[in-house]
Amino acid sequence: VGPVSTDPGVLVDCGLVVIALPLDRLLAPDPALLAALPQDAVVTDVGSVKGLVLEVWGQRPGIRFVASHPMAGTAAAGVEAGEAGLFRDRPWVATPVDATDPGALAAVRALAEAVGGRWLTCAPADHDAAVALISHLPVLVSAALLKAADRGGEGALAALVRGLASSGFADTTRVGGGNPDLGTLMARHNREALLAALALYRQEIAALEKFVQAGDWPELHRDLLRTHELRPAFLAPPEPAPQELPG
Amino acid sequence: VGPVSTDPGVLVDCGLVVIALPLDRLLAPDPALLAALPQDAVVTDVGSVKGLVLEVWGQRPGIRFVASHPMAGTAAAGVEAGEAGLFRDRPWVATPVDATDPGALAAVRALAEAVGGRWLTCAPADHDAAVALISHLPVLVSAALLKAADRGGEGALAALVRGLASSGFADTTRVGGGNPDLGTLMARHNREALLAALALYRQEIAALEKFVQAGDWPELHRDLLRTHELRPAFLAPPEPAPQELPG
Repeated sequence: VGPVSTDPGVLVDCGLVVIALPLDRLLAPDPALLAALPQDAVVTDVGSVKGLVLEVWGQRPGIRFVASHPMAGTAAAGVEAGEAGLFRDRPWVATPVDATDPGALAAVRALAEAVGGRWLTCAPADHDAAVALISHLPVLVSAALLKAADRGGEGALAALVRGLASSGFADTTRVGGGNPDLGTLMARHNREALLAALALYRQEIAALEKFVQAGDWPELHRDLLRTHELRPAFLAPPEPAPQELPG
Repeated sequence: VGPVSTDPGVLVDCGLVVIALPLDRLLAPDPALLAALPQDAVVTDVGSVKGLVLEVWGQRPGIRFVASHPMAGTAAAGVEAGEAGLFRDRPWVATPVDATDPGALAAVRALAEAVGGRWLTCAPADHDAAVALISHLPVLVSAALLKAADRGGEGALAALVRGLASSGFADTTRVGGGNPDLGTLMARHNREALLAALALYRQEIAALEKFVQAGDWPELHRDLLRTHELRPAFLAPPEPAPQELPG
């Protein structure tokens, strides 16, 4: 185990540097950090957006940058929050581009696999669209539910609304009650993809509301049956890619 | 332990009958069930809406009806799904009205407290408004998220969207992927309160979308800080009512 230090000087002998900073600091890196990166080091990040990260880091001379996103973490922060097995069976996505050094990509892949991560690669825009849908959109969907329950439960109803909230409400509001700094940074730096996801969401909630308004219970049931059947597809680990058979 | 039977005849000696049926069958009760209810028995229900239940059951001659809603349950169904401690520390709400027999109300309260439930009473309309906000609205909010992620992830993106969905997505979509019969019945029989909750929700998600659209990050952060601070109030068990002190 190497030293724990906030002094950029510790990087001097590193061949592989993982920059784990909040998005705002990742996207406006400290000059002292940049100056301390060893020549030709493989450098990767753990940011939850990839398009902007590549704009800032992708063409930086003297380093071999790989944009990546290990999708694991807890609400805790700091060195003491380290956790063995954190990355095991979790996706670790890289978004290589033309300028990405294949050797550097292989080095990051080896790191990801050494800690048990599930390695996959895709285009930066695809990554950002996907995380907008399954990670950034849920934060706003969930936050809006908390605000609606708070407003609807004003006055005499407040104690009742709060007293009756149960596990379903707790689950649905967990990400909306999360770290506001993180939520804002994700929205800010993945704005276009998030707006596209929000537009889709607005249509879907409006469609469900219309069924309730019209009393169209067969259509509402059809949609809820569809979501019931759909959800397991989002939770099961994906099938391994089919092996190509020799002709 | 009494007999397990689906024969209404087993009710003949019962002084307290708990009718645990899906809402549709509770609201259109089987004549054989009605005929089998003993004269003057205390009868209660476990339905998740109370206004319509009281319309159907509240003025029925020959029984002493108490509308109630123990807020506990699992996704499992049937006699074998019984679970010791299911009601412990969970809210058990009754919605007494003028016609409710005080002795019958006391009997249902004794049952609720015998199994460890947290007894509370409120007006039927307040119950229905509260559960619309914290139970029925989350189902639609969550289902719309599943549909949006499915639509946004069509084609080449589908495997990626599904492969990257993690615990936050799983939590936020749990109730939207639940039992479609239950979701439809709750919406159908609590329609007005659910529409009011949906209208509030639509305003809140639109407000958040507007901040993202405008790039107004301080306002988005303010809202996410508010929901971060708000959520624990919905999860903590309510304080006991203050005791009146002797003058």
